[in-house]
Amino acid sequence: MGECFVERFEVEGAAKGPLAGLSFAAKDLFDVAGRVTAAGNPDWARTHDPAERNAWAVETLLGAGAKLVGKTVTDEISLGLLGINAFDGTPTNPRAPGHVPGGSSSGSASAVAQGLCDAALGTDTGGSVRVPASFCGLYGMRPTHGRLPVEGMLAQAPQSDTTGWFARDGRVFARVGEALLGEAPGALPGRLVLATDAFGFSDPAVRAALAPAVARLSDLVGERREDLLAPQGLSVWGRAQRSLQLAEAWTTFRGWVEAETPRFSFLVARTLIAGAAVAPADLAQAALMRDEARGRLAALLPEGTVLAMPTTPCPAPEIGLSLPAMDRVRDRINCLCAHGGLAGHPQISLPAGEVEGAPVGLSVLAARGGEATLLAIAEAWEGS
Amino acid sequence: MGECFVERFEVEGAAKGPLAGLSFAAKDLFDVAGRVTAAGNPDWARTHDPAERNAWAVETLLGAGAKLVGKTVTDEISLGLLGINAFDGTPTNPRAPGHVPGGSSSGSASAVAQGLCDAALGTDTGGSVRVPASFCGLYGMRPTHGRLPVEGMLAQAPQSDTTGWFARDGRVFARVGEALLGEAPGALPGRLVLATDAFGFSDPAVRAALAPAVARLSDLVGERREDLLAPQGLSVWGRAQRSLQLAEAWTTFRGWVEAETPRFSFLVARTLIAGAAVAPADLAQAALMRDEARGRLAALLPEGTVLAMPTTPCPAPEIGLSLPAMDRVRDRINCLCAHGGLAGHPQISLPAGEVEGAPVGLSVLAARGGEATLLAIAEAWEGS
Repeated sequence: MGECFVERFEVEGAAKGPLAGLSFAAKDLFDVAGRVTAAGNPDWARTHDPAERNAWAVETLLGAGAKLVGKTVTDEISLGLLGINAFDGTPTNPRAPGHVPGGSSSGSASAVAQGLCDAALGTDTGGSVRVPASFCGLYGMRPTHGRLPVEGMLAQAPQSDTTGWFARDGRVFARVGEALLGEAPGALPGRLVLATDAFGFSDPAVRAALAPAVARLSDLVGERREDLLAPQGLSVWGRAQRSLQLAEAWTTFRGWVEAETPRFSFLVARTLIAGAAVAPADLAQAALMRDEARGRLAALLPEGTVLAMPTTPCPAPEIGLSLPAMDRVRDRINCLCAHGGLAGHPQISLPAGEVEGAPVGLSVLAARGGEATLLAIAEAWEGS
Repeated sequence: MGECFVERFEVEGAAKGPLAGLSFAAKDLFDVAGRVTAAGNPDWARTHDPAERNAWAVETLLGAGAKLVGKTVTDEISLGLLGINAFDGTPTNPRAPGHVPGGSSSGSASAVAQGLCDAALGTDTGGSVRVPASFCGLYGMRPTHGRLPVEGMLAQAPQSDTTGWFARDGRVFARVGEALLGEAPGALPGRLVLATDAFGFSDPAVRAALAPAVARLSDLVGERREDLLAPQGLSVWGRAQRSLQLAEAWTTFRGWVEAETPRFSFLVARTLIAGAAVAPADLAQAALMRDEARGRLAALLPEGTVLAMPTTPCPAPEIGLSLPAMDRVRDRINCLCAHGGLAGHPQISLPAGEVEGAPVGLSVLAARGGEATLLAIAEAWEGS
């Protein structure tokens, strides 16, 4: 199956730093000085010059002493949740051979899961860190929207874009997070909410596979109750996020697309066209639903409370799905990821179970700005 | 600029035949035994086996003694009128360097115009022989719909698809036509209709450039009058043909697209998606307009009458247009080509003039089945 790197090279980190001895890779959406950010598309690469400086996230990890070992495959211009790239190939999912790795941070997740580096940078707009973390059995973080700088990271939909990361080991994951966030792991939370709609929406096999992890998380946290994540409907939130994100992505890429008429896989072209076709009235309605989602998550997640849900409603599908089958999987995944773009709360996916040998992740959300709580959970998860 | 051949090779024709001594190329939409028909798209090539036998048109020209010298570049799966292929490149237009050659039979027109072969096979669904003939200053034929077999030619929209051909020389053009049609050039027509709406729709510079050719054609034919081609509107016919053709193209390619999620240029993906999105009520309306167009052309073109109009409303645009600019040119060209798919009458484009050095063609339409009349005009045009 596919290579996870688009380019391998080494850039040494600062001689002394908290991440000395660790290696990392960067999704090829992050600038690395002197190299072209290809963004998973040959015509993007062809029409852009090499980056003049490192992206903020790359520079920060290098400054903390980690060594950069290469740039990784991404779904074209970060549009995709499955990790399929018709130009660069589909990176191996070493935890579920023959299955997709998840995307769009596919190569970063694959490289970490294969043990080719300790950590990797990804981006998450609509699920692009969370989904591959779930499918490859990794720790993955989507931070609070707006918390980490996105300088030098290729924008897709700025109102939803975030810089995230992966690791195999919870302690490494927390150390990388500390370097990026400038904040040490905090206290464990005291209250846990289980999102019954999200568990109910998932495959029964996923619910069963995650049950032991849910019990373990309950033991770590203490008080536990059940509630709905999205009273208006996970699918209603999913549609709102998709309208907002794709319309914004079209705004981002339209000038380039109209100037260059680039090559895309049919799926990616269709996604862009869907963004161009969002009606203004639907967009306005979606913006109202985003306000509702923000209100809902603020109410559910005061400081000291976390929410648990399946990261994805299913494990990684097999490679080779037809387009209608991919659409169906993508739409289902989107229903469980949409709150990220809508409300911007931080979320980690923990390695948590397997369905017929394929990993599925358990996600934990915190209050906005509550990453320290999530890092504490990751450390405890690794140790427990 | 771009290569016109995707593959060069030689297949000798029958030892004795009316086309002995002539060479031809085939658009890479026609099967050649033992070779993959790539149809201008790398994923079409990847997912199809080599052809078992020659397409009817290839076999017929070989049987008549012509030598096949290669397969030529086409717009992806024949969807395009400008001759731009993001994978194979844009074939040179030797008559207007820096301008597109027209498409989708771009490589065939380019090869003939460059003198690399005497004739070439193309296909014309919505203008794919007529447009490159006009832009490259060649003779080009779109025969009566249904007259020539399409076996071994990749279908796009079978209700509009035809097998056509190009030549630089009117006599060679007529000889190739005789071999394909099984019919010698006939008598010159006695009555000429000038399509005032089509001339009026064209760029003023095109009208001026074609004026001497119109006078010359009038002299050849004799009686002359003016009339409308499309009383309902060239743009109304254009929209009807585009709806019918694209909806049918989606029916043709949908299974493959959904199974393979192929790579396309953004323009081609968008065209397929437009076909998928045609509303049933619009399709039904378009089918009624096709009935009207058939009635109109039958009334305008009894046997012995021909109609003249500009093949294209403009000469070849420059390479490098933005997508909105390409859309505008494509839509304008479609207004002058739509009658072909709607009514199925035979049409030749004659080399007829130049606008700032770039060729423009004068088209002549005849009654259905009236190709012999058009071959006679081509011979006379070369000689006059």
